[in-house]
Amino acid sequence: MNHIPLIDGRHHANRMRTYLKDVVAQLHLSSNIKPHLAIIQVGNDAASTVYVQAKVKACEAVDMTSTLYSFPQEATQDTIDAKIVALNSDAMVHGIIVQLPLPAHINAFDITCKIAVHKDVDGLHPFNQGALIAGHVDGLMPCTPLACLDLIYQEMESLVGQNVCIIGCSKLVGLPLGVMLIKQGCTVTFINRSTPNPAHFTQCADILIAAAGSPHLVQADWVKQGAVVIDVGITRIINADGKAVLYGDVDFDAVVSKVHKITPVPGGVGPMTVSYLLTNTVIAAYKSVDKDMPNNPVHQLFEKQLS
Amino acid sequence: MNHIPLIDGRHHANRMRTYLKDVVAQLHLSSNIKPHLAIIQVGNDAASTVYVQAKVKACEAVDMTSTLYSFPQEATQDTIDAKIVALNSDAMVHGIIVQLPLPAHINAFDITCKIAVHKDVDGLHPFNQGALIAGHVDGLMPCTPLACLDLIYQEMESLVGQNVCIIGCSKLVGLPLGVMLIKQGCTVTFINRSTPNPAHFTQCADILIAAAGSPHLVQADWVKQGAVVIDVGITRIINADGKAVLYGDVDFDAVVSKVHKITPVPGGVGPMTVSYLLTNTVIAAYKSVDKDMPNNPVHQLFEKQLS
Repeated sequence: MNHIPLIDGRHHANRMRTYLKDVVAQLHLSSNIKPHLAIIQVGNDAASTVYVQAKVKACEAVDMTSTLYSFPQEATQDTIDAKIVALNSDAMVHGIIVQLPLPAHINAFDITCKIAVHKDVDGLHPFNQGALIAGHVDGLMPCTPLACLDLIYQEMESLVGQNVCIIGCSKLVGLPLGVMLIKQGCTVTFINRSTPNPAHFTQCADILIAAAGSPHLVQADWVKQGAVVIDVGITRIINADGKAVLYGDVDFDAVVSKVHKITPVPGGVGPMTVSYLLTNTVIAAYKSVDKDMPNNPVHQLFEKQLS
Repeated sequence: MNHIPLIDGRHHANRMRTYLKDVVAQLHLSSNIKPHLAIIQVGNDAASTVYVQAKVKACEAVDMTSTLYSFPQEATQDTIDAKIVALNSDAMVHGIIVQLPLPAHINAFDITCKIAVHKDVDGLHPFNQGALIAGHVDGLMPCTPLACLDLIYQEMESLVGQNVCIIGCSKLVGLPLGVMLIKQGCTVTFINRSTPNPAHFTQCADILIAAAGSPHLVQADWVKQGAVVIDVGITRIINADGKAVLYGDVDFDAVVSKVHKITPVPGGVGPMTVSYLLTNTVIAAYKSVDKDMPNNPVHQLFEKQLS
């Protein structure tokens, strides 16, 4: 397998979790606090349940506490709001996430705004997203963009002057990641489904981020020779045998011979995203003890990469 | 002058102010409310004083109230904070701005965060900036990006699929404007001082935004034939005669024969920025009467362009 230029997300995610387990133990020793993640799920979408279970297990693996609050599909906005308000004021809870997508009758923006900024470990509260634009690195940042940035830094010492192309402009991934990469000194182009000639942009990219949710959109002629390719897309497709298969946005086999490095799907960005959710929860727990917390180990991890 | 392909910012700004004056009169008639802008200035930087006076005069011109709070250069963070807190809870004040730049001993991010989100008529509070990423168009948006977007829409019916290049990635202009243009369906490239070959990107841009604060950075070979050029830069330079001259980021005379349309400096983005500050204050005043305010005239102006 040595000849495949993989960025192994599982390996890096596990490395982080080993480190986090140690940090969690230290926090417990010094302050008698166990980081506690509250997860809210509405309805029982199968994919959401898989993701939620992965998060619960990841918490267990680093000796963190998690509590899952499951609501029926028809739960009202007021019900979810009330739970968030209660969790906001519960000193034993350090992080709160609401598993997306939410049912159509619930206003996801309003729900996100209800979460206390310092417990928003998904980093999706407008305040935390806006802090990215301000270049304020002391807040909670969104997990998938952090995962992508970390994986890129595994392969590159500095990002200053690198040419990045981001396919897909979602509020969850493309936009915040792009802002973070701009702050790192990158030239960043955002393309979307209306871009007349996407390959014109992708072919020049030293770093290509595929976050469109469009299976195998990226073919060999879209990729610059020697590029670093980060595949955020993950689409579940039932194949001819009736088996569910996960597709990335990148046709891995078609592009692998051209790239310097590439993340696989699965096993790339996904596991790292979960590790950053844990990291954010540990940061939130640390900050519950010392609001200014300049030098805890987790914070140093961020500073290394994001200052 | 007809052959010069100007986007006349003064003309459009005055058109908006005529309209706003009418809206202000309607609000006064219906609710006995006069939109009131509070301006905080710290120190007496000459350029800041010019800008502040322009804002005060613009308020007068549309029959809005403004109050200027001037603090000495050495005022403490606590002093400014206390004034903002008082203005936040003053029901007679609808909009609050703190003139930038602030003295180095004051943390501008913390100051911006202190302003109530619904009175943040500069649109620079992290919550309001983050709402741009979420695509939430119901909040207060930053004035200079709104000004640029409006001027672009004067020349183009739809922005979907347009290729935009933004020179400069500040939190005040480049970043939020780029996010807004992405939401309009544009392909957007952000370049900065570390971009190896800036002309490679600028030469392809249907819409070129210069917001670097670098006088006459943009020369003819950077501009695509037929482009729309928006010049946000404004730098005051003392020339050989000892006279202060304002320079844009674009060498107007050098590029004017290539462009479809271009904003001049002065008289382009600047006056429109002030008009959007007034607009935001009127919106804030309307919302103080009716929080949900779906259909007031100012809001419709926004919906036309930003939905």
